[in-house]
Amino acid sequence: MALDRGWFTEAIDATGTAFSLKAEKLHEEQTPYQKIEIWKTETFGTLMTIDGCTMVSTRDNFLYHEMMSHPALNTHPAPKNVVIVGGGDCGTLREVLKHPEVQSATQVEIDERVTRLSEQYFPELCDRNDDPRATLFFGDGIQWMKDAKPGSIDLIIIDSTDPVGPAEGLFGKKFYLDCIRALADDGMLVQQSESPLLHLDLIREMHAAMREAGFAETRLLHFPQVIYPSGWWSGSLAFKRAGSSVERLEESAIAALGTQFYNADTHRAAFALPTYVRKALAS
Amino acid sequence: MALDRGWFTEAIDATGTAFSLKAEKLHEEQTPYQKIEIWKTETFGTLMTIDGCTMVSTRDNFLYHEMMSHPALNTHPAPKNVVIVGGGDCGTLREVLKHPEVQSATQVEIDERVTRLSEQYFPELCDRNDDPRATLFFGDGIQWMKDAKPGSIDLIIIDSTDPVGPAEGLFGKKFYLDCIRALADDGMLVQQSESPLLHLDLIREMHAAMREAGFAETRLLHFPQVIYPSGWWSGSLAFKRAGSSVERLEESAIAALGTQFYNADTHRAAFALPTYVRKALAS
Repeated sequence: MALDRGWFTEAIDATGTAFSLKAEKLHEEQTPYQKIEIWKTETFGTLMTIDGCTMVSTRDNFLYHEMMSHPALNTHPAPKNVVIVGGGDCGTLREVLKHPEVQSATQVEIDERVTRLSEQYFPELCDRNDDPRATLFFGDGIQWMKDAKPGSIDLIIIDSTDPVGPAEGLFGKKFYLDCIRALADDGMLVQQSESPLLHLDLIREMHAAMREAGFAETRLLHFPQVIYPSGWWSGSLAFKRAGSSVERLEESAIAALGTQFYNADTHRAAFALPTYVRKALAS
Repeated sequence: MALDRGWFTEAIDATGTAFSLKAEKLHEEQTPYQKIEIWKTETFGTLMTIDGCTMVSTRDNFLYHEMMSHPALNTHPAPKNVVIVGGGDCGTLREVLKHPEVQSATQVEIDERVTRLSEQYFPELCDRNDDPRATLFFGDGIQWMKDAKPGSIDLIIIDSTDPVGPAEGLFGKKFYLDCIRALADDGMLVQQSESPLLHLDLIREMHAAMREAGFAETRLLHFPQVIYPSGWWSGSLAFKRAGSSVERLEESAIAALGTQFYNADTHRAAFALPTYVRKALAS
């Protein structure tokens, strides 16, 4: 059947898949970087799309934001200085700031309009932007990382759009080399790495590029993410130093995060890899 | 955007979501029970739909079939007699028969045409149908369960369509009472229970109905299932006797299954519930 005008549809030629939500458009603008649209959906709350791709919805953003932040933060022994590259909707920043051990969290977003529209349409994601530990910087993440003080960052979270368009430079050895330099000795990086079913080749290439750049170890985590292609998404972790990975899952600390998806069980589950994914990453 | 005629689309009014695959129709027939269509997709192999809903695709059926069978089989101490209600594509039967401890596996499918079309379009799912332990029975699962010898079944797998249409009677206390009677003392049931995001109320109601019928315990497991609504799916387990659940995860036995998704880690991960799901099921 064809979907009429009452639906937003993201159709992807390369994967032969499409996902749609019943929605009406509330706002549309072309920024210097991309086209941002805001939709009122019938069942998923508000939806932001960028260049026609789903970015964040009221209903299911907790999956992505929790799983791109807490597993990485609780895998680092003491994440004090955190940098988010991208993440303009502020949802990841919000989760990061829930951790009392974090002393500074800097969000480096290239497109200020993403943040301004999020403040307007997703205020709940921006409710910690006034935290004194938070810095909102608007500019190029690639340049920012080149200029970062060596050894100054504990955790880099790359919360970007897909590896085409403005975010392309965030996927690859050149950028990873700058990240390694900016990280402290036990520093680590986590980057959104698409669907474990649809984009397995990309995941494999990312891990190879991370290791080529000099990261000592890489790990994959995966979780449901309903509005993204296939409904199944992943994050890739890269460790500057071998053996630096820990598992900080104190019950009271996790309860204090007030999360909807994340807990000690789902933390461990996220790292449990399907057999075919294990094989792909081992090869 | 609207999708043209080159796509199959399943649009669901109640959830406000739609999923589409680039596809052309190969076959269509109306049986006494439902409308079955077979599609050649561009990226997911062959697709079977029933009454417009995705049922099984070449590319991703391993997720559902493995996770609806192996976690339950390995949670029972010694599953010898297994009954599958529905499951006409034979993919679940195939996984069940991989277990050497299973002595008989009976598939009770109401619509023989589902199986005949699966033999034609999904031969890889039917490659164990000649196993001497297998019985393919075509008839009404509700009546079959009423007639089943009390205490004769170790595991019932309810691999049905959604709780509307022909499968409606498989969701509810009345049918569960017949299942309990047919099960041995340490018997259990697993039933597909829809999406943990879109159908949480249904899951809660199913667990309540299972316990009302007399099941001593219920558990939920979840896994990615790309072609089903939200890309995230679940199965619900019900145990006749409290404390009968085990965890049989011997490495060599699991390796011998030759699975793509399932392993000891993903077994445990499937039972790791998101915090919001835990709360919903506890209430």
